[in-house]
Amino acid sequence: MVASSALGRTLLSASRCHPTRGVSILPRVYSSAARQLADMDASRLTITKSTTPKPLVAPQDLVFGKTFTDHMLSVEWTATDGWLDPKITPYQNLSLDPATCVFHYAFECFEGMKAYKDSKGQIRLFRPEKNMARLSASSQRLSMPAIPEKPMIQLISKFLNVDERFIPSEKGYSLYLRPTVIGTQRSIGVGPPGSALLFVIASPVGPYYPSGFKAVSLEARSDIVRAWPGGVGDKKLGANYASCIAPQLEAAKKGFQQNLWLFGPEGYVTEVGTMNVFFAWLSRTGKKEFITAPLDGTILEGITRDSVLELARENLGPEGWDVIERKYTIAEVKEAADEGRLLEAFGSGTAAVVSPIKRIQWDGGMERRALGEKGAVEINVPLSPGSETGPIAQRMWNWILERQYGEIESKWSVIVPRENL
Amino acid sequence: MVASSALGRTLLSASRCHPTRGVSILPRVYSSAARQLADMDASRLTITKSTTPKPLVAPQDLVFGKTFTDHMLSVEWTATDGWLDPKITPYQNLSLDPATCVFHYAFECFEGMKAYKDSKGQIRLFRPEKNMARLSASSQRLSMPAIPEKPMIQLISKFLNVDERFIPSEKGYSLYLRPTVIGTQRSIGVGPPGSALLFVIASPVGPYYPSGFKAVSLEARSDIVRAWPGGVGDKKLGANYASCIAPQLEAAKKGFQQNLWLFGPEGYVTEVGTMNVFFAWLSRTGKKEFITAPLDGTILEGITRDSVLELARENLGPEGWDVIERKYTIAEVKEAADEGRLLEAFGSGTAAVVSPIKRIQWDGGMERRALGEKGAVEINVPLSPGSETGPIAQRMWNWILERQYGEIESKWSVIVPRENL
Repeated sequence: MVASSALGRTLLSASRCHPTRGVSILPRVYSSAARQLADMDASRLTITKSTTPKPLVAPQDLVFGKTFTDHMLSVEWTATDGWLDPKITPYQNLSLDPATCVFHYAFECFEGMKAYKDSKGQIRLFRPEKNMARLSASSQRLSMPAIPEKPMIQLISKFLNVDERFIPSEKGYSLYLRPTVIGTQRSIGVGPPGSALLFVIASPVGPYYPSGFKAVSLEARSDIVRAWPGGVGDKKLGANYASCIAPQLEAAKKGFQQNLWLFGPEGYVTEVGTMNVFFAWLSRTGKKEFITAPLDGTILEGITRDSVLELARENLGPEGWDVIERKYTIAEVKEAADEGRLLEAFGSGTAAVVSPIKRIQWDGGMERRALGEKGAVEINVPLSPGSETGPIAQRMWNWILERQYGEIESKWSVIVPRENL
Repeated sequence: MVASSALGRTLLSASRCHPTRGVSILPRVYSSAARQLADMDASRLTITKSTTPKPLVAPQDLVFGKTFTDHMLSVEWTATDGWLDPKITPYQNLSLDPATCVFHYAFECFEGMKAYKDSKGQIRLFRPEKNMARLSASSQRLSMPAIPEKPMIQLISKFLNVDERFIPSEKGYSLYLRPTVIGTQRSIGVGPPGSALLFVIASPVGPYYPSGFKAVSLEARSDIVRAWPGGVGDKKLGANYASCIAPQLEAAKKGFQQNLWLFGPEGYVTEVGTMNVFFAWLSRTGKKEFITAPLDGTILEGITRDSVLELARENLGPEGWDVIERKYTIAEVKEAADEGRLLEAFGSGTAAVVSPIKRIQWDGGMERRALGEKGAVEINVPLSPGSETGPIAQRMWNWILERQYGEIESKWSVIVPRENL
């Protein structure tokens, strides 16, 4: 657990091997293309077991992201050598020079995914190839390496075998996995990282709503913008998160749990908090519509979003629902609510799966915003009678969990082979 | 230099004192307001000297951000206690839990400033209060603490006394200072950091253009956007930097040194690379205009930009120049060039002071961009005959350096008191 560990020393030596660039960014980039770089190779994994295993936390005491397993998976990359040998080591601090580029220029991206234990005790992942593809796209957008899907899923499977005892057995519980890529070049010159560290840590988690759904209230502001066309809002970068906290705290002081993110003078609905968002309403002509914003570069390409859409087409389609990806505005939501056509709304994400919405306070756009509270517009979202969710959110949650826990066999659920490691 | 040092241990213990929040972000925020938090107190500084002083690098071998001094300054902050006692320690690695929020959600902001040695051997800072005010604004935008100006400048002054031998004496050389604030909470829950670390490291640097100015060529693209209204482009956050590298590498492959950042369908000119940008032209009516974009929330509030504007008003104003902060478009620049009215252009920033521009290739907007090279528009910017700079950039560089090195006394230049530490 101390920082002068093997991992710390290796990181230090790796960054020493890659002298900092100066103003020019060209020489290293072109020279690195001149030699064969090593691929990531799961067969070269080394495992160093912890000698101080942690006690397990009782399932009901688990808090999201608070406790971690005994080990971590890490793979270093350098621009001159490619991927170094993967390692599973005791969970430990990272030892990094204060000039390391991750601290200065936000060279960092991550994923959120979960491992589940089914009723037979098998370990399952849910669409892990989607997480790896997105991590690869995020990493490359930051001029860091592509992340190869196959060896990464093999390595995560081995990591799950090593820390298998931390995966809770109860339905709704899981082991949250956090693959992360950080730039490790020891340099405050602004340029592409000459070295990076991919690591995976894991935290056992309980259900997001331990005593049943709790619908949330949202604040929708027109003066704070999460993402922009030509920006990076569709990638899972650290850079998209830190600046969202201040608006969330301001919303919390007024009693709202999250922000509903709008875009442009039209007030397009984009996301909620750190989730994608769905609305169910009747169109003006009485058609049942289930709608979310399209992947236009400003929306996180949610894997739960994709699952929700496919399950909606499969299960809601036959019931007469149109499943729609298009731009839509908060004014449309308001109008549907006023006319009694708004049926339901919820967020979707890995942590909560679905998160029902009961109320939105919209500042009404920049002109009404200037009026303060007088300009604000209230939108009440229906819930099932006596419930904290709507019927689609409830059913969607069931459909997804049945597949995550292997109660219904699905192409999305991947069984992790058991190994003695 | 190993990570299990005093600093590493303190960080680790500090983060242990602040258990990770779960989903709710409210309890800690409100409880922290209930008690008196400690102010930053420069008189409580402790100094631990390095026992392995580094050799000095010869001035001509210095590369920006590559070598650092013997020591670092650090001050920890926690939401429950406020600022802990400041420390000057040997330059050393940071030891951080892999769940620390700086690695996941880009809780990080920084400053770039320089210390100069004048002809009498006095150490000088240039407008340090502006750097501290901006760092404070950046930190608070990320829900991290305000940075108090006075004790910070006192602490930096003491740090400069301790590492005085690293400040080069030659004009054009300086000690680049990098104050940085990172979130240190050990948590992957998305919320405000319960602890942070402010650290300052220092790197001796030579002139940006060691053998005289070298004018740069720029690529101006309409499909990549650095900042937008309602975003955080006016703050010096790590989050604003990593995503700018990929477009820079693409530009470099085509022979351009930097990107000229445009905004919106109008093609407003905003910044260049990591600098503010200025144009000098004759208006259609023959008026001499010196222009830069206004601080509308999408532009970094450059301290060199502010100095350039004030010096231009003082020195160029009497020569008949209008010094103008307003939105202007790349089409205006192109038209001025076509009509022989474009006189000069340069970037401004702490590292280069001024950086002359000789050529811009603009994709011509999204419609012309779709045509590829056929749609591109070339803008040639005049330079002084036989020179790699224009007359204003050359004079501005002189005006600023005379003040930074104390050749001309100025309210901007702050002499650091000498102390035996």
